[in-house]
Amino acid sequence: MSLTKYTAALEEALLTVTYGSTPPELYEPIHYIMSLGGKRMRPLLTVLSAELFTDDWQKAVFPALGVEVFHNFTLMHDDIMDRAPLRRGHHTVHEKWNDNVAILSGDVMLVSAYELLSEVEDGKLKRVLKRFNRAAAEVCEGQQFDMNFEKRQDVTKEEYLEMIRLKTAVLLGFALELGGILGGADEHTCALLKKTGDAIGLGFQLKDDLLDVYGDPDKFGKLVGGDILANKKTFLLLDALEKADGTIRQELQYWITAKEFNAIEKVQAVTALYDLLGVRSTSEQVMNAYFDEGLGYLSQLPVAEEKKQLLRFYFSDLIARER
Amino acid sequence: MSLTKYTAALEEALLTVTYGSTPPELYEPIHYIMSLGGKRMRPLLTVLSAELFTDDWQKAVFPALGVEVFHNFTLMHDDIMDRAPLRRGHHTVHEKWNDNVAILSGDVMLVSAYELLSEVEDGKLKRVLKRFNRAAAEVCEGQQFDMNFEKRQDVTKEEYLEMIRLKTAVLLGFALELGGILGGADEHTCALLKKTGDAIGLGFQLKDDLLDVYGDPDKFGKLVGGDILANKKTFLLLDALEKADGTIRQELQYWITAKEFNAIEKVQAVTALYDLLGVRSTSEQVMNAYFDEGLGYLSQLPVAEEKKQLLRFYFSDLIARER
Repeated sequence: MSLTKYTAALEEALLTVTYGSTPPELYEPIHYIMSLGGKRMRPLLTVLSAELFTDDWQKAVFPALGVEVFHNFTLMHDDIMDRAPLRRGHHTVHEKWNDNVAILSGDVMLVSAYELLSEVEDGKLKRVLKRFNRAAAEVCEGQQFDMNFEKRQDVTKEEYLEMIRLKTAVLLGFALELGGILGGADEHTCALLKKTGDAIGLGFQLKDDLLDVYGDPDKFGKLVGGDILANKKTFLLLDALEKADGTIRQELQYWITAKEFNAIEKVQAVTALYDLLGVRSTSEQVMNAYFDEGLGYLSQLPVAEEKKQLLRFYFSDLIARER
Repeated sequence: MSLTKYTAALEEALLTVTYGSTPPELYEPIHYIMSLGGKRMRPLLTVLSAELFTDDWQKAVFPALGVEVFHNFTLMHDDIMDRAPLRRGHHTVHEKWNDNVAILSGDVMLVSAYELLSEVEDGKLKRVLKRFNRAAAEVCEGQQFDMNFEKRQDVTKEEYLEMIRLKTAVLLGFALELGGILGGADEHTCALLKKTGDAIGLGFQLKDDLLDVYGDPDKFGKLVGGDILANKKTFLLLDALEKADGTIRQELQYWITAKEFNAIEKVQAVTALYDLLGVRSTSEQVMNAYFDEGLGYLSQLPVAEEKKQLLRFYFSDLIARER
């Protein structure tokens, strides 16, 4: 089963998108960040979803790219806020240019996202925008919660799950829902698609957190242990803090509060504590429950099972991924 | 002739707009900046423009507020980029909170602007968005040019006029055009409205620059001479640099390059040079030409003259304003 046809169509269409040209400081960063690649997961979800309901999935290509442009806009702005030096192995926009360029290029990217999203039939535009506006605001809410959590010591696992639902999952939900709307699916079916994406999105982010600790350094694109080094309050750390007591808790607190440490030593020590506390399996259980929930919604979609094979295949790819 | 009915309706509707509530760091800054007031010029232009073509100008109120929310979003982000401490006499959002809050609140404000702008009849939505997207991107382009000009020593008056056209005028043009679209005006009439706003907007910004130097300190809301102190490359300074030679040029260059100076002395000295060079009258001529151009387009609108009185009255208010 092949996804190549769809990814190729998306990449090809992406090359034809014009964002503007003058002044170059405003538009070059857009071309730059869009050229860094990535999984193109969101637009792929949109076209695969549209294809469930119509043979003319091509009409979903540009709106789908709107979701991808929006996603990259959030990355550009999040990277400023997080002072991230690298994105997909390359300098972030605020590093390569400066903060102001990253702010303003991001702003105009959001306008471009709306432009692309508006390339839908007139009768569907209001519904698409309404749903997108909700998702877009929620993504911002998620990022704000994420930043707030950095300064808090009492974040719960439930709060973390709500944060990643907002920051990551709802946009995957919207991507699938958008395909449904464009493909002509009814309200109920579109709502199911949204729930599918939200659930898969939660599983996807938990997978990301797991890979950050347990990924194969040779396959994982980023430095394994980055979250541990940054004391990022992931599901894993929050679960560990919930479970740990006695000397294990002391040791965990030692590593979290240590100002000076050997990076490799810290990653190994915290990972060992995670293993001791059974944090990995708890996290995998929660992750798998979300993936199962998403697959369950997919099963409920009033579409012939053979039609769903491609999405099912893509989801299993996401579930099994090693990077 | 009274505009009170319209401004009251706009302010009343503004109080009913819900942007969201959680997390508070994301939404409080939006309420804050929107509560700082301002002329509400853009939404007023939209409803007055709609009223040229329909008695039901109320239907333009929420889309008009979308333009106002967009305008305030640009202020929030511009203030970060310009490191401005104050806005309308109050702390800017990045000063009261921090840069990250101002970036992210601004982002979600842009989403809110689209939400409000989308409150139009289905059949008009695509046209509204298409025109707005163009204006929004141009406003960003204008801000980027403005920042670029700070680092350049060879900016021309023509480049300056193009910059303020993008940064300020096109949104006034869109505000009028939006009213036309919502009021049911035809393409040609909407294009005339756009040209009216663009021209009035250019005059408006030149007036702003003049007030910054020649305004009555008791009436002008900001510090008179702020542009001179910042060596802001306004039409006045660029015209002065173009006209000055010999010792006058030397004196002007002295003040522009001086690292240490008495603020009052600098403002007085540069203003005196402006007077000597006839910079004020040149600027007023160009400004008046734009206002006349705008009023000329207004005359061409296929609408009964009595209908136009309110817009004419409002424009003359803008032209005569002392703050």
